[in-house]
Amino acid sequence: MVGAGQLARMCAQAAIGLGVKFTVLAADAQESAAQVVPATVIGNHDNVDDLLAFARDCDVITFDHEHVPTEHLDALIAAGIAVRPGPHALVNAQDKLHMRTTLSAAGIPAPLWREVTSAEDVADFAATVGWPVVLKTARGGYDGKGVMVVSSAEEAAVALSGSNVRWLVEEKVDFTCELAVQVARSPHGQAAVYPVVQTIQRDGICREVIAPAPIDEDTAIQAQAIALQIAQLLDVTGMLAVEMFLTTNGVVVNELAMRPHNSGHWTIDGAVTSQFEQHLRAVLDLPLGSTAALAPHVVMVNVLGGDHPDMYHAYLHCMARDPGLKIHMYGKEVRPGRKVGHVTVVGDDLADLLERGRHAAAYLTGEITE
Amino acid sequence: MVGAGQLARMCAQAAIGLGVKFTVLAADAQESAAQVVPATVIGNHDNVDDLLAFARDCDVITFDHEHVPTEHLDALIAAGIAVRPGPHALVNAQDKLHMRTTLSAAGIPAPLWREVTSAEDVADFAATVGWPVVLKTARGGYDGKGVMVVSSAEEAAVALSGSNVRWLVEEKVDFTCELAVQVARSPHGQAAVYPVVQTIQRDGICREVIAPAPIDEDTAIQAQAIALQIAQLLDVTGMLAVEMFLTTNGVVVNELAMRPHNSGHWTIDGAVTSQFEQHLRAVLDLPLGSTAALAPHVVMVNVLGGDHPDMYHAYLHCMARDPGLKIHMYGKEVRPGRKVGHVTVVGDDLADLLERGRHAAAYLTGEITE
Repeated sequence: MVGAGQLARMCAQAAIGLGVKFTVLAADAQESAAQVVPATVIGNHDNVDDLLAFARDCDVITFDHEHVPTEHLDALIAAGIAVRPGPHALVNAQDKLHMRTTLSAAGIPAPLWREVTSAEDVADFAATVGWPVVLKTARGGYDGKGVMVVSSAEEAAVALSGSNVRWLVEEKVDFTCELAVQVARSPHGQAAVYPVVQTIQRDGICREVIAPAPIDEDTAIQAQAIALQIAQLLDVTGMLAVEMFLTTNGVVVNELAMRPHNSGHWTIDGAVTSQFEQHLRAVLDLPLGSTAALAPHVVMVNVLGGDHPDMYHAYLHCMARDPGLKIHMYGKEVRPGRKVGHVTVVGDDLADLLERGRHAAAYLTGEITE
Repeated sequence: MVGAGQLARMCAQAAIGLGVKFTVLAADAQESAAQVVPATVIGNHDNVDDLLAFARDCDVITFDHEHVPTEHLDALIAAGIAVRPGPHALVNAQDKLHMRTTLSAAGIPAPLWREVTSAEDVADFAATVGWPVVLKTARGGYDGKGVMVVSSAEEAAVALSGSNVRWLVEEKVDFTCELAVQVARSPHGQAAVYPVVQTIQRDGICREVIAPAPIDEDTAIQAQAIALQIAQLLDVTGMLAVEMFLTTNGVVVNELAMRPHNSGHWTIDGAVTSQFEQHLRAVLDLPLGSTAALAPHVVMVNVLGGDHPDMYHAYLHCMARDPGLKIHMYGKEVRPGRKVGHVTVVGDDLADLLERGRHAAAYLTGEITE
C-alpha cells in the first residue's frame, strides 16, 4: 500500500487475519502505519523511482490516498505491476472535473456544475442556480481543502486570482442529510455494497457516521444502486466510497474516494467484513466478504486532536466509563483538528449509542472533562 | 510478549487498534507473529540473557506460552521488570501438581487426583477410582502431550519407566461435555468473565468451540464463579482460561492457561472485546472491555494442517462459498495436524453455524473436496 496513514494501519490489522503479506511505502518511520508494519519502505510517493523500487517486491499495489500522479501509475503498469485501482479509475477520485464529466455523461444524479476559468463564469453559473455557489479545485482537495463557498463574483475573483489550476463550480445543494455508500469491487467484477450510512460533517471534516442511515428503504436502494453503477462504470478495484447529498428530490453524488474511507470505519466493529479486509480481498481478487451489519445500529465518531498532546488519561477514563466502547488510536501525534483515532459503539438503541460515542470522542479530544 | 506463535500474532492485531506498542521475542523471523510485528527480537525464551535484553525496552512483559522457567521470571522481576502474569500465578499453568494442590486446598472442584512416583501408586489410586486413570506429567504438557490414559499397573509402569519428572494421576472423568471459561484480570484487581463455551477436542487437541455453551444458566454461573475465584486466588493478571469437565454432579476443573487461549478465538469476531485486546488491556492495567457476545451463537473451528502444503485454492473456495465466514490464517507452514488457522461464524442458527464452520475447516484441511 502506497501511503502509511491510519487507513494503511487498519489495513495492516486486516492483513494479519487474512494471512496476507502487507507492507507500506511511508514518508517516514513515524507514520501511523509505518509504526506497525514490518519491512516498511521509506520513500516518496511523488517519486517514480521510489514507487518502482517499492512495487517490485509486491504482487499488487494499492493506495491509502489519491495523491500518486497518474503518470507514475502508468509507469508502474508499464513495468508490469498490478495497480489497483488502475489509473483510469483512480483519476475520477483525483480530478473532480474528470469525475463530474464522466458521471454526468452516464446520467448519474449530480449537483448542477460547470468548469470555470474566471469570476465571470462563476457569476454566469450563479445567475442560473443562485448564490452562494461552491467553488472547487479540480485536484488536491480533501477534508474540506480545495472547496469554498462563495457568495459573489468578487469573492470568486479573489479565490481564482493568481491560481493556475483548473476549477469547477457547483450549486450549493440544499440537502436533508449527507450519505455515503461503500462498494467493494474486484478485478473479475464481483461487487458488494455496504449499508448506506449517514455522515455528519463539521468544517468539511467527517465527524460522525451512523450505520445504517436513518432513511427510507427506497432511498437506500437508490443510493446503493448508484454506487454500484459508478463502481462498474469506472472499473474500480478495491473500495469505492460515494459521498452523496440527500435532497427532497432524491440523492445526488458529491465526492468519490477509491480506498477505505472514514465513512466505513464503523465496519471494523460493526460489520461481518471490515472495509479494510474487504479492500484487501478486492485488490487481491479474493472473493468478497459479507457486508452485513452485526447490530441494528452502529455509531462511529472521529477523535480529533485537541489542545492537550497527552490523551492517555482520557483514554483510561473512557475505557473505564464505557466497557462497550471500541476506541481505535492511530499512533499519531496529537495536533488540534487532526484525526488521531475514532470510537465505535454498536447496539440496539441509536440515541444511547450517539450519546456514548459523542461523549467519548469529546472527552478524548478534551472538549469536555466529565 | 515472549513467544511469537499465533496467540502473539492475534495480540499484534489488537495492539494496533489500542494504539499500544507491541513487540515479540521470537525464536526465528518466520514465526507466526514475527512475520507481522515490527522490531521483532530474535532470542531464546530459555535464555535469561535473551529475556533480559528483550524486556529492558518494555513496560510490561507477558507471554504467549507457559514455557519460560520460573527462575528466569524471578530474574526479570529482580531486574525491575513488570512480569504479567507473575511467576507465582504462572506456575499454576506450568505445573499441574502445583495447580492441583493449590486449587484443592481452596476447595475448588477437581477430579480425584494424587501425586505418584511408581506404578504401585497408580494402582493404589485406581483401586479407589477404577481403571482407566489419567497419568500426567506435572510440567510440559499441552495439546494432549504429557497426558496419557492407562488401564493397568503394567501400562503405568511403562509410562513411568526411565522418567525422572514428577507425575500425577487423576480419575478419568465421565463427562457430559467439556467447557472453558475465560477471565481477564488486571493488576488492580478488576476482573471480567466471558460467556462459558463448549470445547470439542479430538486426540487431545481443541477442534471446535461453541459460544455460549449449550448448558443451563445455573451451571454457566457456577462455572463462571469458579473461574473468577481461581483468577483471584492465584492473583492472575491477563487472561486466564479454565478448562472444565461438565459431569452429572456439576463442573470440575481440568486445566488452566494464563494467556489468550484457543477456546477464546471466537471473541475476535463474536464478542465486543476480543480475548487478545482484553489480555493487553489486563496486563497493561487498562480498564477491561465488555465480554458480551455480538450474536446469539458463535462457532469457531480450528484449521489443522493436512496433507497438502498449499491451502490457497481451498481458501479461495471457502471465501467464495460462504461470504459470512471469518477465516484467520496464522502464516504458518502447513504440517499435518498443526494448527494453521481457524474459522469463525456468527449468527442465530447454531446448526447452520456448525455446518458452515466444520465444512470450511475440513475443506481447508483437505479432508473434503466439495
